[in-house]
This record gives sequence, C-alpha cells and structure tokens, in this order.
Amino acid sequence: MARQTRVPMPTLERLATYLRYLNDIEATGIDTISSAEIEEATGIHAAQFRKDLSYFGEFGRPGIGYNVYDLQARLAKILKVEKEQPVLLVGAGNLGSALVGFPAFRRHNFHVVGVFDNNYNKIGRRLWDLDILDVNRLKEANLELGARIAIIAVPASSAQVVTDQLVDAGIRVILNFAPTTIRVPEDVVVRNVCFIQELAVLSYHLSESDDTRAY
Amino acid sequence: MARQTRVPMPTLERLATYLRYLNDIEATGIDTISSAEIEEATGIHAAQFRKDLSYFGEFGRPGIGYNVYDLQARLAKILKVEKEQPVLLVGAGNLGSALVGFPAFRRHNFHVVGVFDNNYNKIGRRLWDLDILDVNRLKEANLELGARIAIIAVPASSAQVVTDQLVDAGIRVILNFAPTTIRVPEDVVVRNVCFIQELAVLSYHLSESDDTRAY
Repeated sequence: MARQTRVPMPTLERLATYLRYLNDIEATGIDTISSAEIEEATGIHAAQFRKDLSYFGEFGRPGIGYNVYDLQARLAKILKVEKEQPVLLVGAGNLGSALVGFPAFRRHNFHVVGVFDNNYNKIGRRLWDLDILDVNRLKEANLELGARIAIIAVPASSAQVVTDQLVDAGIRVILNFAPTTIRVPEDVVVRNVCFIQELAVLSYHLSESDDTRAY
Repeated sequence: MARQTRVPMPTLERLATYLRYLNDIEATGIDTISSAEIEEATGIHAAQFRKDLSYFGEFGRPGIGYNVYDLQARLAKILKVEKEQPVLLVGAGNLGSALVGFPAFRRHNFHVVGVFDNNYNKIGRRLWDLDILDVNRLKEANLELGARIAIIAVPASSAQVVTDQLVDAGIRVILNFAPTTIRVPEDVVVRNVCFIQELAVLSYHLSESDDTRAY
C-alpha cells in the first residue's frame, strides 16, 4: 500500500469478510449470531473477531451474541459502504463486461456509472445499461459522474496509461485487474486482483498434497 | 486456509508477486535486476525479498544482482508452475467466459480444459475452443481430463453444490469467485477472489482521503 492508514489493512480485510458473511445470511432470517458461528463460517478465529470489533467500541451481548442487522450496519459504516458509490470501469472487453454486469456490485452499493475503452469499434456501443465512452474523454466525463473509485480491466500493456488518465480525472482508489504492477502517486490507493498469482499459490499447495499422497 | 503448509502463505504470495513481475519484464530484454528494483516495482522491501529467497538457497550475486531468467525459472519451480496445469471452470456466464478467454492464464501454464454449467441453454454450446458440459457429468469428465485445480464462477446460491461436486471429482485446490464462503474438506485448499471485499477495503481509504482533504 502506498500510504499509511488508520486501520491496518489486515483488519480492514477481516471486517470486509465479516460484512460479506452477514450480507450472505441476510436473506435467511437469522437475526443473531455468535463469534463461534463467525469462526465456523469465515475461518477467522472467534477471539480475533471479538478483538477486531473491540477496536470500534461495544458490539454484541455476552451469552446472547450479535444482532445481524446492527452488526451489518455498523461494519458498513466503518468501511464507508453504507451509501451508493459511483465507480468507473476502463476496459470493455470480456472481463470488463462481466464486471459491469456483476450483480453483487450493485447489491453492495457499488454502482458502475461509466465504462471506457480505447477501441473505436467499441466506443458508442451499449454495455448493459451504459454507453461505452472514449477513454480519452475520461477526465471530462468524470467532471459530471464524480467517481473516486475506478476498476481497471485492460491488458497489461495499457494499464499504466489508463492509470495516469484515471488519477488525472480525480480517481483516488483503484481496483486493478490488469496482470501488471501499476504506479500511482502516494495519495492514491491500489488493490490488485491477480488471478495468476492466486492460481500460482494454489498450484504450490496442489503439488504438496500430491507429494503427501505419493509417499 | 484449511491446512498447514510448509511455506507460509504470505511468503508464497510474495514469491508469486516476484514471479509475476519477472514475467512482466521478460519481453523487455532486461537480463539482470537488483533487489532495489524489485522493491521499486512490487512495493515489497528489498530486505524482505532477499530473506524470502534465502529460504530456498543461493540466488543472485552481490553487487551484480539476479539473472532474470534464472530467478524466473527457480521461482516457477518453487511454485510448481513450470509445467502446464489442467484447470476446470464451472459457470459459463459472463465472468466464466471472461476467465476462459483470459490470455494470461495460458501464458502462465494454466490451461482451462473443461467448462461446466447447469443451464441447459448453455450445455453443448461452444465457449472459445471448448464445449460447455453438464456440471452433473463433472466427475465422469474429469476421469479423462485429470484436473486437480478448479475455478468456481457461479452465483453464490450454487457455489456450495458445485464445490461438493468438484471435491467429489478429485479437485484438490479451488479458486472461488462466487461471493460467498464455501466449505471444503481439510485437505482441499480454497482461495477466494472477492471483488466486493476489495472494493469495500478501497472504499474505506477513499473516505479517509476525503476526510483528510476536508479538514
């Protein structure tokens, strides 16, 4: 991460995991959960969960547990996802199209409001409910859209150019799907989603379990 | 993670990051790099990089640096990604289609050899160079395909059923894109790619930087 933050990144990641789980069970009608159930569902130790929450004040009641809706609302507030966030997406290829149509984004208050590409065969065409815009008009378009979050879903070769355009257009945080490292100013935050890295880490485990079974 | 591993997960993740960077620069003709350049490109401290490598023996030469191809080959060997790995993908929706066509997979030796869906409108249709197969024939198909790695790109509601089918078909490691927690036996390893969690963590940073600018 490029900059120092108040809440450490691993804590934020765990808070987001708890929130995702609460969102998962929202529809089931369960209204109270225990830290043991959180551990069972997320793999994060109950003691760690209680410690993470204690950082933000009083939650839950001993022997009774946590109210699902209350906990959900407070986690959403801590992560600042309680109100709708406009998001820009650059790259209207296969991955970009899938991301624009990803139902869970909207359900979690992330709303893709602009899609951009540099391919003249795509610009002007429709993607779900949006017109694909020229990436060179990104800054101009974002004056109106007002997004501060962007998703990069372009090939590695154009990722840095797009990053620079996004930063110039006022984007403060970037979710990067391009399989390359992008450079940003110190006050811009990037998270990389790298499918290849994930598979490489898994691949290591695979071989190991094969070894175990072979001997 | 469900099981104890020899190399700790954070180390594996860093090794995969180094390898990704080396793969990035492979085409540029650079043949030697320093740990300072690794730090500059990946954000991981040079000292950490040297420590990670020292775990696996001698690498590089003091004052000269690391040979890119040698380092790349040795990291690939450690992560066991040096030979082609067959991969199954379940879910032939927008995300699944994007993943099957993701050019970087093949370039990094991950080869999607089977695509499965439960939608009878999709089964039998073509996706890139593959026929979409019935997910209920997964076990039977994998007797021939022999994959141990699978990618889940189905809605949250079907993720657990699909997971059970994959485990039954001999899958040992799973990359899960469904926005929900899946349960697996102890000897199966899962990595979750959760776009919502990534955006939630970013969202926190966004608000913080807005606060900073407001005061």
